[in-house]
Amino acid sequence: MYSFRNDYSEGAHPRVLQALIDTNLEQTCGYGLDPRCQTAADLIRRLCRAPDADIHFLVGGTQANLVTVDALLQSYEAVIAASTGHVSVHETGAIEATGHKVCTVDTPDGKLTPALVESVLAGHNGSEHMVSPRLVYVSDTTEIGTIYTKAELTALRCCCDAHGLYLFLDGARLGSALTAEGNGLSLPDLAALTDVFYLGGTKNGALFGEALVINGAVPRSHFRWHMKQRGAILAKGRLLGLQFQALLTDGLYFELARHANQLALRLRDGIAALGYPFPVESSTNQQFPVLPNSVVEHLEAKGYAFEIDRPVDDSHTCIRLVTSWATPEAAVEAFLKDLASCQ
Amino acid sequence: MYSFRNDYSEGAHPRVLQALIDTNLEQTCGYGLDPRCQTAADLIRRLCRAPDADIHFLVGGTQANLVTVDALLQSYEAVIAASTGHVSVHETGAIEATGHKVCTVDTPDGKLTPALVESVLAGHNGSEHMVSPRLVYVSDTTEIGTIYTKAELTALRCCCDAHGLYLFLDGARLGSALTAEGNGLSLPDLAALTDVFYLGGTKNGALFGEALVINGAVPRSHFRWHMKQRGAILAKGRLLGLQFQALLTDGLYFELARHANQLALRLRDGIAALGYPFPVESSTNQQFPVLPNSVVEHLEAKGYAFEIDRPVDDSHTCIRLVTSWATPEAAVEAFLKDLASCQ
Amino acid sequence: MYSFRNDYSEGAHPRVLQALIDTNLEQTCGYGLDPRCQTAADLIRRLCRAPDADIHFLVGGTQANLVTVDALLQSYEAVIAASTGHVSVHETGAIEATGHKVCTVDTPDGKLTPALVESVLAGHNGSEHMVSPRLVYVSDTTEIGTIYTKAELTALRCCCDAHGLYLFLDGARLGSALTAEGNGLSLPDLAALTDVFYLGGTKNGALFGEALVINGAVPRSHFRWHMKQRGAILAKGRLLGLQFQALLTDGLYFELARHANQLALRLRDGIAALGYPFPVESSTNQQFPVLPNSVVEHLEAKGYAFEIDRPVDDSHTCIRLVTSWATPEAAVEAFLKDLASCQ
Amino acid sequence: MYSFRNDYSEGAHPRVLQALIDTNLEQTCGYGLDPRCQTAADLIRRLCRAPDADIHFLVGGTQANLVTVDALLQSYEAVIAASTGHVSVHETGAIEATGHKVCTVDTPDGKLTPALVESVLAGHNGSEHMVSPRLVYVSDTTEIGTIYTKAELTALRCCCDAHGLYLFLDGARLGSALTAEGNGLSLPDLAALTDVFYLGGTKNGALFGEALVINGAVPRSHFRWHMKQRGAILAKGRLLGLQFQALLTDGLYFELARHANQLALRLRDGIAALGYPFPVESSTNQQFPVLPNSVVEHLEAKGYAFEIDRPVDDSHTCIRLVTSWATPEAAVEAFLKDLASCQ
Repeated sequence: MYSFRNDYSEGAHPRVLQALIDTNLEQTCGYGLDPRCQTAADLIRRLCRAPDADIHFLVGGTQANLVTVDALLQSYEAVIAASTGHVSVHETGAIEATGHKVCTVDTPDGKLTPALVESVLAGHNGSEHMVSPRLVYVSDTTEIGTIYTKAELTALRCCCDAHGLYLFLDGARLGSALTAEGNGLSLPDLAALTDVFYLGGTKNGALFGEALVINGAVPRSHFRWHMKQRGAILAKGRLLGLQFQALLTDGLYFELARHANQLALRLRDGIAALGYPFPVESSTNQQFPVLPNSVVEHLEAKGYAFEIDRPVDDSHTCIRLVTSWATPEAAVEAFLKDLASCQ
Repeated sequence: MYSFRNDYSEGAHPRVLQALIDTNLEQTCGYGLDPRCQTAADLIRRLCRAPDADIHFLVGGTQANLVTVDALLQSYEAVIAASTGHVSVHETGAIEATGHKVCTVDTPDGKLTPALVESVLAGHNGSEHMVSPRLVYVSDTTEIGTIYTKAELTALRCCCDAHGLYLFLDGARLGSALTAEGNGLSLPDLAALTDVFYLGGTKNGALFGEALVINGAVPRSHFRWHMKQRGAILAKGRLLGLQFQALLTDGLYFELARHANQLALRLRDGIAALGYPFPVESSTNQQFPVLPNSVVEHLEAKGYAFEIDRPVDDSHTCIRLVTSWATPEAAVEAFLKDLASCQ
Repeated sequence: MYSFRNDYSEGAHPRVLQALIDTNLEQTCGYGLDPRCQTAADLIRRLCRAPDADIHFLVGGTQANLVTVDALLQSYEAVIAASTGHVSVHETGAIEATGHKVCTVDTPDGKLTPALVESVLAGHNGSEHMVSPRLVYVSDTTEIGTIYTKAELTALRCCCDAHGLYLFLDGARLGSALTAEGNGLSLPDLAALTDVFYLGGTKNGALFGEALVINGAVPRSHFRWHMKQRGAILAKGRLLGLQFQALLTDGLYFELARHANQLALRLRDGIAALGYPFPVESSTNQQFPVLPNSVVEHLEAKGYAFEIDRPVDDSHTCIRLVTSWATPEAAVEAFLKDLASCQ
Repeated sequence: MYSFRNDYSEGAHPRVLQALIDTNLEQTCGYGLDPRCQTAADLIRRLCRAPDADIHFLVGGTQANLVTVDALLQSYEAVIAASTGHVSVHETGAIEATGHKVCTVDTPDGKLTPALVESVLAGHNGSEHMVSPRLVYVSDTTEIGTIYTKAELTALRCCCDAHGLYLFLDGARLGSALTAEGNGLSLPDLAALTDVFYLGGTKNGALFGEALVINGAVPRSHFRWHMKQRGAILAKGRLLGLQFQALLTDGLYFELARHANQLALRLRDGIAALGYPFPVESSTNQQFPVLPNSVVEHLEAKGYAFEIDRPVDDSHTCIRLVTSWATPEAAVEAFLKDLASCQ
């Protein structure tokens, strides 16, 4: 009946679609140099209180990750990431395909800490026989739905400064993070604390698109060359600027994320009330309950779609439920009712 | 007043937009494995009379080119291309960034011939000290608006067969080629004669998208791995399938291209009638007239936008005029009238 | 007074040098296609009882590793290695620089097992969103001096067969492994059990050189293209063939390795007799004792050179002592005497 | 009876060999950080009057080329080279395998000029849609035996300065160039005029080795990281320093090159005296006479070995004759006598 499989199952928010319709025959130059992209970039700079930031619009997250890493790093420099990090496992070696090693470290909650970063550095002796870890990659929300507090991100920034590292934050689900229970981070904080981060559009109301914000002291001047070389400049770049313009007008971006989070918490609370555990606490739009296998099968038989995160033991499975800007409240309530009926 | 700068200045044809609107809340799985992509792929296989073809949808041309070359070639294998080829000059070394050399050869009309291909092969001795040219890259229409006849493409195919080469046709402007005066090629011809080609959507009525058709005896099984590694799988892949479904229904794709060509020929004939020469004959949607510099400036002052192809001599410039599915007849007529008034 | 820092501190065994002198003015063709290389290759094929093996001579280990991995793997395929593996940590991302991910797994003794290999595979779901682990990289001796038994290598081979993986054995210190206490492997075993392995010359009596043996069902036909592309074909390739010819005549290769091992065991036994522990048991030419820091400083002050493996606690350090074909017995005895005097 | 095929057919000059023998059991640290390499580097800095130059020793030319290009260029930057340049045709795409495009230009005599360099620049518009040509690659001697005059190299330097380009000179046959008739360049000139160049050892008396001199304002600090990543740091680096120490003591390097050149001129004059033409004038150790096919066959039947450069017409072939430090005068005289007897 309903798919909780991910937050990119549907198209775009109606206001985003309407912007495409309204401007369809506007003639602009291509490749993201048009007035729409400039307007959206200005909007983002203002929201980030980062007047000197460079803004680039890319179509998707893997693209944004591989272009950024390749643009910032020299051949012998490497990435530090959580072993659950998207660049570590879910991008088919996209970073390595640009020539860079990803040094991973295990973390229970998907988040990096100064201690974890320093444990990676400690394994590298600074000689020419080893890569030089140079860029710390984090995601907010993380791959398992957790978020960084302001204190945590500030500590990472200090750690990066102390060791001459860049800090890059993958914001594919940034809307969900910034509107979550317990979040203390704002866009200006992100612009101040990271060297590069992005506002994910694909998973929060756009048809597609990630808005990259470069506000740190990193190589910037030829970023568009790196983009083009990787096939990451959209011909009708206007489409990206336009969508972000729509999303960032009147707070739509945050409103949509808040909606997704609220329904996720409704799911969390409803499931917890039925006695099912959550190995990791998430206040964002991904929830990972552990259910008996029979219940999982029952839900699937009812027509619900979701991802299997992993088997927990012989009779239990951790599943992933994802809500989005498009999830109807009724779908959540129906799911909870059906889940209750499994008991 | 009007931009003839390129064929991606506007959005999408209304029927394409409508398809996006109508299906906006359909939930599908991501990454191009959804029913819309399957339907569009089936449609393309039928139009190509190629039931065994693999169809992949990519966002843009540079992406399609770099992924295809990298997927087909081993590290030591190289591309043969015209020195005007898009992969040679206009993609910031995207092919080389995947590790492959592009061996170029000069050609007066933008087209490769068996003799030109063999001249490249003759410069390679088959030893381990040189790359092995393995893939012939052509574009139809070419970068200068010319098209391949069926005889020409058949001759290239024979040449490729004789030398164990792959034939890859960049169809960013394929609609314009297939509907041009003098064209003898059909989609089934292309599927039969090339190993890989694509139907360009970006420049012919879609918001974005290229539909890649792999019908030759090339490595196919892991094409999606190559796509993902290069950031070339769109999360909401459905958007690509849907647009091609709309374009390929009731011949819309060809109708749009025919419109662009007709207006280009109107431009060509009108300009020629005023006595201005065209160094290369084009029957497609790009026209390259040579105008006095004073006329060029006059047109620019009138508000017309177009690309400068190159200075021809101290007082003449070759410009590029591009029409598209969205070009209004009135814009063409106004341009010709303004041009006439320059004399 | 004496350096136990590594096994490449000196030049070549006199018989190797003599071969260079004797043939100095022989004219041969270049790039390893000469009669000396052919003779050495034939010798290796006979010693390996592998008449169909391809033999290639390379200058060094990092070169051999990166060329082999790149020649065997497709872009989306990855290496499985111990987290202590040379390719994982000591080659400045050389594998990643060819575009391939190295998937690492912790192992207490430097060795991979089927269970460890399968734990890596279990983290990959076979989809296009993840790399495909395809090649298992092991070293014999390992980076910490341990060796594979025949049963262990056979089990790895079965595991590789079961999962369609290649098995590649880095033999930079293969001589030491094959002549060690407890070794049950022979060259024919290695040729039969691995897809590719090499006999290290650099660390066992040659000036430089590694002899690569490709005996498995792997892509072979263009290996020399991969070598050339990576700058790994020596102009005077003859020098490599000649050195291996000298080393493999009358068992010199094994005699030299046996010498290194015997002195290493003398060190081990002498150090153990003084009561110092060895965290990992090694029967080969690298020994890793743990000594009080004051003893370490005393030895350094005496003029002994060796590498610091790692601090163990505030007052103890694990050091690495390496012997070679060139280590004189007297140096070992002097070291032990000086060590005894520290107590 | 004698091979004029190349200048790396034999081993090393006796004084080089003797240095290896004399120091065979010296213990040094590895990877080129030893006193021998330091001594040789100091010697080179003095000979070049370049006290601030960085000196690196590499095993071969392809390695030196690919490491240098990759170390100096950013991903989107490209090489400018003659279409006959070694990096363009004879290195199996080694440069492209590091991700960089080689932009080629035809030149009748193997040499680049400011006009040719600027013709390449003129084809690049400085936008993000094209690579940025950044490094000019030249060889001295060139691949066809010609040499740069001081005026020519100075003009190239000015051109590079005017356009912000690096100048890299491949000196695989630099000895031959510097000791040729008509040469006006010295090592200090090379150090002053280029950013990076190398003194080839492989083709001038060493077993192997190229000494790279970095004296320009180029990225230098992590050159050894780039070397290691490409497998281009020799474990027993001492062997490289030692050989260059021997070659650069008492002018041996120049003496050997002079010998090769003298015998080449003897060949040239003797062949010309027999009436055979030379399409390109060379005063260095490669000579390219055009001979009747019957004469070529006769010489081959007599046992002479040489490379076929290319067929000139149905009955004539251009061959390449190469002399070296090891070529005996008697071999040259015998060749000329046998050639005369063909008439």
